[in-house]
Amino acid sequence: MPADSFLRACRLEPVERVPIWFMRQAGRSLPEYHATRGESTLLDAVAHPEMAAELTLQPVRRYGVDAAILFSDIMVPLWAIGFGVDIVPGVGPVVERAFRSRADLKRLRGLEPDDIPFLEETVQGIKSELDIPLIGFGGAPFTLAGYLIEGRPSTRLHMTKKLMLTCEALWFNLMDRLASLVIASLEAQVSAGVDALQIFDSWGGVLGPDHYRRYAFPAHRRVLEAVRAMGVPSILFGLGAGHLLEQFAEMADVVGIDWRIPLEEARRKLGPGVAVQGNLDPSVCLAPWETVEHCARAIIRQNAARRGFIFNLGHGVLPETDPANLERLVEFVHRETENPDRMEDVR
Amino acid sequence: MPADSFLRACRLEPVERVPIWFMRQAGRSLPEYHATRGESTLLDAVAHPEMAAELTLQPVRRYGVDAAILFSDIMVPLWAIGFGVDIVPGVGPVVERAFRSRADLKRLRGLEPDDIPFLEETVQGIKSELDIPLIGFGGAPFTLAGYLIEGRPSTRLHMTKKLMLTCEALWFNLMDRLASLVIASLEAQVSAGVDALQIFDSWGGVLGPDHYRRYAFPAHRRVLEAVRAMGVPSILFGLGAGHLLEQFAEMADVVGIDWRIPLEEARRKLGPGVAVQGNLDPSVCLAPWETVEHCARAIIRQNAARRGFIFNLGHGVLPETDPANLERLVEFVHRETENPDRMEDVR
Repeated sequence: MPADSFLRACRLEPVERVPIWFMRQAGRSLPEYHATRGESTLLDAVAHPEMAAELTLQPVRRYGVDAAILFSDIMVPLWAIGFGVDIVPGVGPVVERAFRSRADLKRLRGLEPDDIPFLEETVQGIKSELDIPLIGFGGAPFTLAGYLIEGRPSTRLHMTKKLMLTCEALWFNLMDRLASLVIASLEAQVSAGVDALQIFDSWGGVLGPDHYRRYAFPAHRRVLEAVRAMGVPSILFGLGAGHLLEQFAEMADVVGIDWRIPLEEARRKLGPGVAVQGNLDPSVCLAPWETVEHCARAIIRQNAARRGFIFNLGHGVLPETDPANLERLVEFVHRETENPDRMEDVR
Repeated sequence: MPADSFLRACRLEPVERVPIWFMRQAGRSLPEYHATRGESTLLDAVAHPEMAAELTLQPVRRYGVDAAILFSDIMVPLWAIGFGVDIVPGVGPVVERAFRSRADLKRLRGLEPDDIPFLEETVQGIKSELDIPLIGFGGAPFTLAGYLIEGRPSTRLHMTKKLMLTCEALWFNLMDRLASLVIASLEAQVSAGVDALQIFDSWGGVLGPDHYRRYAFPAHRRVLEAVRAMGVPSILFGLGAGHLLEQFAEMADVVGIDWRIPLEEARRKLGPGVAVQGNLDPSVCLAPWETVEHCARAIIRQNAARRGFIFNLGHGVLPETDPANLERLVEFVHRETENPDRMEDVR
């Protein structure tokens, strides 16, 4: 099998079988992950090249997925410039002093290579053992702003929206700085050797389409245009973002779809020029294998005959997931889609 | 002005101006609410007819809305049968012993009139002072199951989905009992005198369309069909449920839309036979009035000329909301839509 089916799918080129990887495939669902991380914090692990490389490679060895994703966190650039970010187990990113006013802008300085000295060694360590593509990633400016303003994970982002609607100039200044920070981080990853970039817009879905267009889209487009200039494929993933897919399609090469929107419908909204990635409900992987197979087959039936399809979950692997289910899922997707007749572009 | 514009809009009949009310209009955003509730718990307040009536009437007096909504909680029927539910301030519904297995089914007995002895007096107290319709409500079985299984508010409902996918017979039994419980509670409210019923399916949006169809829709349809038999209009509200609107349209007279889906698009999905309610982002009401007016005008422009439109927020009033903004919003919606030319049915 060619090792680049993931990149070919990103580019809408024919593949011999559907590529598959899992968001958060390196993580708490794997016993070897716990063994390697031990007592070290997530940010310690990210900053330790040998450990980060090992955590990145573990799911590749176990599952036989078609892409690896760098072990890191969307908050790393903010942590690296000293904004005061911690990743609290069981909670998520927590910001020591939340972003509240114009005075906080000066805490958002640019990212320098010295801020992430571990990156190059980590990526080189991974690439020396990898024969599939490596995905780097960053947070969408809106999602990063949400963490900075709320100070911790929030499902509604009321404070963020209030600042956005009430202090427009400050908001656009913040988004602009975050876009620059993310672009610098993505550029460093591509220089180090990653082959594709995913932008996580975990919270953009809390905005209606008009607000997204006005307050998030310009900075997000800037990030994705920068990725295009870097010459690697871009994947834009949003949670609960079915109402934003038309806007996502204007920006990215591949759009990651959560499990709420059938891929058929997503394809209609995205148009023919965009690849899709998704979208098995991660909760399904908590059920017995027969249920996983049933749901995976339904997704494959709708998509395997099309170009530009990457199988993934609709969100990250849940920590309670039995790795055996994911192992079988990779095998199943490969086996079910390696019939070349099915792989013709029938559009 | 006729006092029944809300009910006429529910029935797709012409109105002289667009009716408006707010989900969670009786609540923490009002100073008089805090004064009346004092130190009493939410469930104490619900069970105290004079207090519950006063809390129901406060927003009617202050805002001049076109409908009142009974001061209660979707967990009241479960609390009333002794399932062991508490509403924890700042958290939400917390279940002492979460629903875990078949053995927990027997804790879900039927609702008897003696379980909610306060209801009739509360409703009569309200109706004696009210010249607009009174809305009663209940939780959708899926949402109630989510609270029972997770034990507390959860955004992802992984345990709920795992039980649903893994123990189908138990799941359908649970949904059936919850549907019966909700129907009994809604019947009691209609007997006591409420004029319409809203079903809150706050969490149904975490399911993809196929899972919703299989695991939630049958019990929800049973509830909505029972409401139809009671002879009052039904409103079905879901959060982040844009992908479920076609299914909602099969069940309810009115569908409540959150702010993520433009009402134009919601109308297309719902078809002409269903009224819509919504959908100003509640976060917008945290901004200065000019922003509220701008966003409200955009919604009115798209909808005021259509039959079957009830202005509301896309979710409940946020506690931090300045009541002055809501006061002006009611006045604005009434004034902007009372031109009879605009009220013609242009579909």
